Amino acid sequence: MAYSIGILGATGAVGQELIRLLHERNFPVADLRLLASARSAGKSITYEGRSWTIEEATEGSFKDLDICIFSAGGSQSEAFAKAAVASGCIVIDNSSAFRGDPEVPLVVPEINPEAVEAHKGIIANPNCSTAIALMGLYPLHQAFGLKRFIASTYRAVSGSGAGGIIELEQQTRAWAAGEALQKEVYPHQIAFNLIPHVDSFQEDGYTREEMKMLHEGRKILGLDELVVTCTCVRVPVFRAHSISISAEFERPVSVAEAREAIAGFEGAELVDDPEKARYPMPLDYSEVVPCGVGRIRRDQVLANGLAFWVTGDQIWKGAALNAVQIAELLHERGLVKG
Amino acid sequence: MAYSIGILGATGAVGQELIRLLHERNFPVADLRLLASARSAGKSITYEGRSWTIEEATEGSFKDLDICIFSAGGSQSEAFAKAAVASGCIVIDNSSAFRGDPEVPLVVPEINPEAVEAHKGIIANPNCSTAIALMGLYPLHQAFGLKRFIASTYRAVSGSGAGGIIELEQQTRAWAAGEALQKEVYPHQIAFNLIPHVDSFQEDGYTREEMKMLHEGRKILGLDELVVTCTCVRVPVFRAHSISISAEFERPVSVAEAREAIAGFEGAELVDDPEKARYPMPLDYSEVVPCGVGRIRRDQVLANGLAFWVTGDQIWKGAALNAVQIAELLHERGLVKG
Repeated sequence: MAYSIGILGATGAVGQELIRLLHERNFPVADLRLLASARSAGKSITYEGRSWTIEEATEGSFKDLDICIFSAGGSQSEAFAKAAVASGCIVIDNSSAFRGDPEVPLVVPEINPEAVEAHKGIIANPNCSTAIALMGLYPLHQAFGLKRFIASTYRAVSGSGAGGIIELEQQTRAWAAGEALQKEVYPHQIAFNLIPHVDSFQEDGYTREEMKMLHEGRKILGLDELVVTCTCVRVPVFRAHSISISAEFERPVSVAEAREAIAGFEGAELVDDPEKARYPMPLDYSEVVPCGVGRIRRDQVLANGLAFWVTGDQIWKGAALNAVQIAELLHERGLVKG
Repeated sequence: MAYSIGILGATGAVGQELIRLLHERNFPVADLRLLASARSAGKSITYEGRSWTIEEATEGSFKDLDICIFSAGGSQSEAFAKAAVASGCIVIDNSSAFRGDPEVPLVVPEINPEAVEAHKGIIANPNCSTAIALMGLYPLHQAFGLKRFIASTYRAVSGSGAGGIIELEQQTRAWAAGEALQKEVYPHQIAFNLIPHVDSFQEDGYTREEMKMLHEGRKILGLDELVVTCTCVRVPVFRAHSISISAEFERPVSVAEAREAIAGFEGAELVDDPEKARYPMPLDYSEVVPCGVGRIRRDQVLANGLAFWVTGDQIWKGAALNAVQIAELLHERGLVKG
């Protein structure tokens, strides 16, 4: 069994890694088609000696595809999802367009794989910070029962796509050369700076990005009562996000049991030997499949509380890897017609 | 009235800024003497056209000094504080050596200026992250009564002294030149990375630095029941620290009143207009006297809770500025014999 796979938004940072991960993880691809906007159509992308010409995405693009991974932003997802589904193509959508739709499963394969069964053509891939935070929160939830948590994120520039990575590179090179720094992607310099602003602001002062941790966390964990405070901060790091979390649980916690829970979870690695200066860091979790969890200790403020630190590759677990894992899940469960 | 002032540790990042701030703030200095270890003795420091030769610090160095600001680390403070006090010199100590001593006032002039009155020769200057966090927490405490808080810090490399700044500079230049990165100050690369490790670890998994937020917060605010969870993270930023805080208060809170409280406090500036992309950032709070407070919103997890973001110059409010402000306080209150 091998499938016709499409990637919408193939030229982006996530699109590039989708091609790589489908190949490296030996996903059964019979045919790969790369779709993008008219602006990119006709360009070609080469990977491991093979080349693909990018086709302009139109409503007719999906009729021969079994699965198409959408990674071109919410408006492109909204424009093409209906046509794709009508063509019999399963959409794995990396945008936030359908994540809140009760008809659309929001899936992290290590957490709620069974949710894919109910799909009606579209499966949503979660927000990057949420997916990475849950790699630490979920095994602890299984052990102790999650009630609420407070998260401060340290978000890499890859979360803004290829443009974010280029901006940090260019600003840093300009600094080293003693030249003026240009900015385009971010409203402020990101090199050697922090920007506590990711996505647009709501009236209550939270950003939409900050609220995703609550809304998507509830849906993925199936916890309607979950309460979350999140503060999202952009940091001058290339591609792995980190999150400092204080979480309160239903049942008494212990650090030893928490470590066991993390170590026993396939989505995470326990990196928690501070005496030897071992804890998860973005440089160690770029282009790595599991997320790293460490600095586990009792939270002083919250009842049955644990404080910990999670790091994971934003482009992988936060986007492309999770999408490919969803495709793998569909394949394993025989949910793709092929 | 003008005083003989000494600086112990004059060659460090904080020492340099002490010379500058004493000058720029027109502190009444009759005579300035720069002290350091034997290694630096004989070197000279020039500022605004004046030069000083660095003297080796000995027990006899303090007898003609009215005030000496110690900024050479805990072991130097322990070695010389007693001799300085015995010579009649008031010590303003920037290390953590005496902060927990009940005989030693720990002072942030905007918060507990009256504490200097009880000094017995030594006045302690607080930890940098604590001083900066309190610039947001204290006015909110006055308005609503602080009970407990959770803080995640984003610490600049200046917190490790001149060596930290040089390390980030050199690693970044090496990256831009395509050369191998060297490390000396930090156990891991700091350029484009995050290190969730500041100071040494205790058995319970917290670092000593993380516990300072609790111990020093309690002492400065006079709140013996205060509870704090702190996670300290080093970020690739040069000299201003930032802190994401979720705090719980005794009384009901409102964002409007919180903003008023911040705006009315001399140690802070309210920078909270997210729609215009205005919030405090390290680049805007380097070499600036007040700390910036913004992103104020209701915390979702804590009762009577507020979430907010504080940024302040680590070398200034976190060290040199607060020390000079303590000297100013001693002068204003006629507590220096001169």
